[in-house]
Amino acid sequence: MTLKLVIGNKNYSSWSMRPWLALRANDIPFEEIFIPLYTGAADKQRILDFSHAGKVPILVDGEVTVWDSLAIIEYVAERFPEKRLWPEHPAHRAHARAVSAEMHSGFAALRNECGMNLHRPVRAIELSEDARANIARIEEIWADCRKRYGRSGPFLFGRFGAADAMFAPVVHRFRTYAVAVSEETQRYMDAMMALPAFAEWTKAGLAETIVIEKFETA
Amino acid sequence: MTLKLVIGNKNYSSWSMRPWLALRANDIPFEEIFIPLYTGAADKQRILDFSHAGKVPILVDGEVTVWDSLAIIEYVAERFPEKRLWPEHPAHRAHARAVSAEMHSGFAALRNECGMNLHRPVRAIELSEDARANIARIEEIWADCRKRYGRSGPFLFGRFGAADAMFAPVVHRFRTYAVAVSEETQRYMDAMMALPAFAEWTKAGLAETIVIEKFETA
Repeated sequence: MTLKLVIGNKNYSSWSMRPWLALRANDIPFEEIFIPLYTGAADKQRILDFSHAGKVPILVDGEVTVWDSLAIIEYVAERFPEKRLWPEHPAHRAHARAVSAEMHSGFAALRNECGMNLHRPVRAIELSEDARANIARIEEIWADCRKRYGRSGPFLFGRFGAADAMFAPVVHRFRTYAVAVSEETQRYMDAMMALPAFAEWTKAGLAETIVIEKFETA
Repeated sequence: MTLKLVIGNKNYSSWSMRPWLALRANDIPFEEIFIPLYTGAADKQRILDFSHAGKVPILVDGEVTVWDSLAIIEYVAERFPEKRLWPEHPAHRAHARAVSAEMHSGFAALRNECGMNLHRPVRAIELSEDARANIARIEEIWADCRKRYGRSGPFLFGRFGAADAMFAPVVHRFRTYAVAVSEETQRYMDAMMALPAFAEWTKAGLAETIVIEKFETA
C-alpha cells in the first residue's frame, strides 16, 4: 500500500518540507495529500481527522499513522533501512540525531523572525541577538559535520540524509532573508539547492498562489 | 566505560530529567555530572566544553557525545536494546515516537507559563487559552495511549519507556500548578509518582537549595 503524506502549503510549511524531502530524495513513492493551512474550520477538521495532534505533516502507512516531522523520519528510516536515512556508524548516527533534535526543538528566534516563505522577495531584515546566535550555531553545526563526514558527499553526513532534511528549510530562510553567511555555509546551501528533490519542492511552492497574511509580515 | 550524563538543577531542569529517568528507571548505570544553570560564564563554559550546543542534558559514552533529551533517549534505546525503551511493535513504536516528538517540539505555552519548579508551593495560576489547549491535548494523549496499550502496565505503552520519560516533567507541572485534571489523568500521574526513579529525582530536586530567580515568577 502506498504511503500517504499529509502536508501544508509548500510555500510556507517548513515542517511539511522535511519528511517530504526525506521521502522524495530517497525515491520512496508516496501519495501527497495537500491541506491548505489557516483557511478555517473545514480544513482544520481534515487535519484532525488524520491526527488529533492537529498539525501537518502526517504520514499514513496502511493502519499506521505517524505525525511530527522527526517521528515520521524515524519511521521512514526503520521502514526503508536500505535508504540509510541515518548514518550507519553508531557514533555518527548519534551525532546526526543530536543535530536533528537540536533543530527540532530549538532555534525559536530564527524560526519566528524568518518564517519560511519561498515567494518572499529576497531582503535582509534586522535580527535579534538570539536569532543571530541561532544562525551562528547552525553555521557551526553544518561546518563541523561537513568537516568530519564530508569525504563521501557534500551533505552533513556525506550523502543526503535525515539531518539534511531537518535543516533544509533553513537554507530557504538564509536565502530569502539574505543572511550574510560564510563561504563554507554557502557551499552547503548550494549543494542543497542543487538537489533535485529540493528544487522540485521549491518550484511547486513558488507556483502556489495562496497567500497567508500572517506569514507575510517580515 | 561508564556512561556520563551531564545535567542541570534537578529542581528546575525538565530536559535533564527526561534521559536521567530513562536511564535510572531501566537500571542502566551512569555517572552524573551536575552543572548548576544560570550561574555565569564559568559553568556555561563547562557545558560548552561538553557540547557546543551549550545545553544540558549531554550524554558521554566513551568517544561518543550526544546532546538533546530525545537524541540521548534514541541513543540509549539502541545501545541497550534489551531495555526496550521503545515498544517492540513497529506501529506502537511509531506512536510512541510521535507523542514523544510532539512533546519535544510542542506545548510551548504550558512550558512557558508553568515552568518545572519542584519546590514551588502548590498553587493554581491563571492560564492562557493556549496553555489550556496544551493541557487538554496532553490529557488526550495519555488517555488514548493507556486505553490502547494499558493491558501490560500503567504507563503510556504499558511498561515505563521513552514516551513516559518525555512526559514525566509534565506530571510535576500539573501537580505544582494545581491543574484540574480528569481522574484518568490523575491515575497516570499517580503511577508516575510511584515510580522509584521518579521519586528519587524529586527528592534530590527538593533537597537542592539553589534558587534561580527568573524561574520563581509564576
